[in-house]
Amino acid sequence: MSNMDSVRVRVFSLNCWGIRYLSKYCPQRYAMIGEMLYKEQHDIVLLQEVWSEKDYLFLKKKLASCHPHSHYFRSGVIGSGLAIFSKHRIRDTFLYRYSLNGYPYMAHHGDWFGGKAVGMAILNLGSLTANVYVTHLHAEYSREKDSYLPHRVVQAWELQQFIRHTSAGADVVIVGGDLNMHPQDLGNRLLRAYTGLQDSYLETAKFDGCENGMTLIADNPFISKKELVPFEKGIRIDYILFKGSSKADVHCDSMSTTKGSVPNHPFPYSDHEALTAELRLELHSFSCLSFMDLGKLAELVDIVTEARTEVKVGLHCAERMRYTAARTGVMGLALLFLELVIAAVPYLALGAEQPFPRTSFYLLAVLCFAILLTTSMLYIFYTMELKSLQGAEDQMRLGIGSLQEKLKGFCLAQLHNPSGRPPEVQEPGAFEPEE
Amino acid sequence: MSNMDSVRVRVFSLNCWGIRYLSKYCPQRYAMIGEMLYKEQHDIVLLQEVWSEKDYLFLKKKLASCHPHSHYFRSGVIGSGLAIFSKHRIRDTFLYRYSLNGYPYMAHHGDWFGGKAVGMAILNLGSLTANVYVTHLHAEYSREKDSYLPHRVVQAWELQQFIRHTSAGADVVIVGGDLNMHPQDLGNRLLRAYTGLQDSYLETAKFDGCENGMTLIADNPFISKKELVPFEKGIRIDYILFKGSSKADVHCDSMSTTKGSVPNHPFPYSDHEALTAELRLELHSFSCLSFMDLGKLAELVDIVTEARTEVKVGLHCAERMRYTAARTGVMGLALLFLELVIAAVPYLALGAEQPFPRTSFYLLAVLCFAILLTTSMLYIFYTMELKSLQGAEDQMRLGIGSLQEKLKGFCLAQLHNPSGRPPEVQEPGAFEPEE
Repeated sequence: MSNMDSVRVRVFSLNCWGIRYLSKYCPQRYAMIGEMLYKEQHDIVLLQEVWSEKDYLFLKKKLASCHPHSHYFRSGVIGSGLAIFSKHRIRDTFLYRYSLNGYPYMAHHGDWFGGKAVGMAILNLGSLTANVYVTHLHAEYSREKDSYLPHRVVQAWELQQFIRHTSAGADVVIVGGDLNMHPQDLGNRLLRAYTGLQDSYLETAKFDGCENGMTLIADNPFISKKELVPFEKGIRIDYILFKGSSKADVHCDSMSTTKGSVPNHPFPYSDHEALTAELRLELHSFSCLSFMDLGKLAELVDIVTEARTEVKVGLHCAERMRYTAARTGVMGLALLFLELVIAAVPYLALGAEQPFPRTSFYLLAVLCFAILLTTSMLYIFYTMELKSLQGAEDQMRLGIGSLQEKLKGFCLAQLHNPSGRPPEVQEPGAFEPEE
Repeated sequence: MSNMDSVRVRVFSLNCWGIRYLSKYCPQRYAMIGEMLYKEQHDIVLLQEVWSEKDYLFLKKKLASCHPHSHYFRSGVIGSGLAIFSKHRIRDTFLYRYSLNGYPYMAHHGDWFGGKAVGMAILNLGSLTANVYVTHLHAEYSREKDSYLPHRVVQAWELQQFIRHTSAGADVVIVGGDLNMHPQDLGNRLLRAYTGLQDSYLETAKFDGCENGMTLIADNPFISKKELVPFEKGIRIDYILFKGSSKADVHCDSMSTTKGSVPNHPFPYSDHEALTAELRLELHSFSCLSFMDLGKLAELVDIVTEARTEVKVGLHCAERMRYTAARTGVMGLALLFLELVIAAVPYLALGAEQPFPRTSFYLLAVLCFAILLTTSMLYIFYTMELKSLQGAEDQMRLGIGSLQEKLKGFCLAQLHNPSGRPPEVQEPGAFEPEE
């Protein structure tokens, strides 16, 4: 629906848990999702964990009449799992793959193979240009001992960088996806504070859904309660975020989530709950700039500093791992050398007996080679991890410098003009290239 | 230098050929480069192939007084090799790593390990916001049989995407680097046509340098003439590109390249020639939009179509390679199975003699495992390559659709208003998010 100066947009987001042959009732759930999307006719549908392209194509066919425009984002070994369906023409798409995403040898966690990324689609909503982002961050497998925290913080950093730098020309920004972060987690605060994105659950005028907006709940039959400990009832890790611009304001009129079951069906759409937000875009006829207060700016500096510390912890950890790999490699090499020396003795001291049983000789050699191969690959991998972490840390340092400069300008301006607001310090969302 | 309505910017770009212990006279050349940069005091220095961080730190120290702002872009195993030095404060940086970049097993070509990328730095030039990009694309090792062509075309595609989507808020765009493409190569045309970037060599009012602006010349003592065949005198593969905006026009007042030698030194700065461009940014007090003609738009459609064909060729090739890897893997598995069966015979038919000499048995088993390991890794790698190629092809298809729609709008508008220009079709540089 749209009239002269407001446009209504219904946005849907769901982590589909679509691992073929492994996720429970996968084909049946896709059929249910397709039916529901066809009936509901959202403007924009953002899906995550659509791991199989066949399932994407099934949905594409099913939704051909109501959502003629769609895009599947490919990346990594398996894919990014990200898909977007839209009523409105998609004008352009772009994918940014996170530089860090777990470890290939943690195959049971599987994140590395997924090539986690953020996908962007540019579409027109009435006369407005909307940049729509869909993403899925690295999972948190243990709240207490989260070895992936630095990776997730770097992903959140890259996500905010990507959104900030690509949305300068957008009138509206909409982000949906499974961030795998609680509302107050570092990466989440970093994302919202730096980009100025608003959380539709917190901003909505009307809410219908799970308690506290939770999206991974104990009442969902696909969820084992053990996974949720220490959060008995569930957690909120899926989001629809939005942001306006000088050309349009965005309001969230209502928001809803599914509640762990679907009427007339034996099981829900997924192990995650689905989110729907009704956004209202109000057009301005004039351009306005809003200002950020001192407190918010200082808070942003604190958040980025905290993120930088977290990345540094990851750096030390990766450095230690790389050192261990190198040391083990050297030991493998030494072992191989030793074996060759022992084997060479009979040849040098003619007549001496070969001290090695042949079988053990070959087995030991194979072991040495395996150690050498594995440790060299690990060494290369940790080097790449280090580079990515160092890169993010560098960018954060630079960011903190820029923010502190702004803060200084702000304080000086307040000193000279205690009642007014300094014109050079804008909203968080305004820390953008166009500033 | 800057006055009220024009800003002069001197931009420098050089591929430093900085492979420690392999590139000739590496430390001496870095000392020469540092001296020259210190003396010349360019506004913006864009360096490629600074493979070692130690060399970056050497330059950073040397240039601390004249170029207090700098950034080193980290990526991949070795790094991206990209560095930027600036007189003007760098406000923000961002790195995009190309999704395709050669093959890890082509270690002698080394590109894969470099983690080729495009680095962005946002800085203020007077009152203008400049987005400065530095990049280095995959090398071309054979002009006739260029197996990396699809990779380079995808890199050029991603480069133009990255520049278009991140520069919506910029008043000036400056791109420098070693594109490893001749001026009329597909990727180069794609980049310039889609973004509207202008080539400083073609636009300059004054030029002083090698014939035809060449940057890899036969007269350079580090170049073996064999490499250049069939181009006797040399080729032009390094560029400084620029683009204005509705807020500022950019003109190239003069441009120069080194000529294969440095006065008072026994050898040049690098195997590539260095580029210097003097840009003049003219501020508008009013906002103006320029329009693109029908011919240019149709040409852009042709170029993207050509790029899509090239990517499709790469797709078929990668599919074939993946199939070969799978087949070889199956053969390795069959061989292992056969060996185990033969070895099992004596155990089953008691008393029969072991038909295998023990040594050959173990060697064969190791061979089988090696085949299995290698082919599975290759299979994973080719799958990732396929995803990236398919992703780029998808984006190109979408791009062609959008462009054709514009073309249709253009034709319709001309039909109704044969003399005027249709307001909805803008300059190439205007195919941007803000459009």
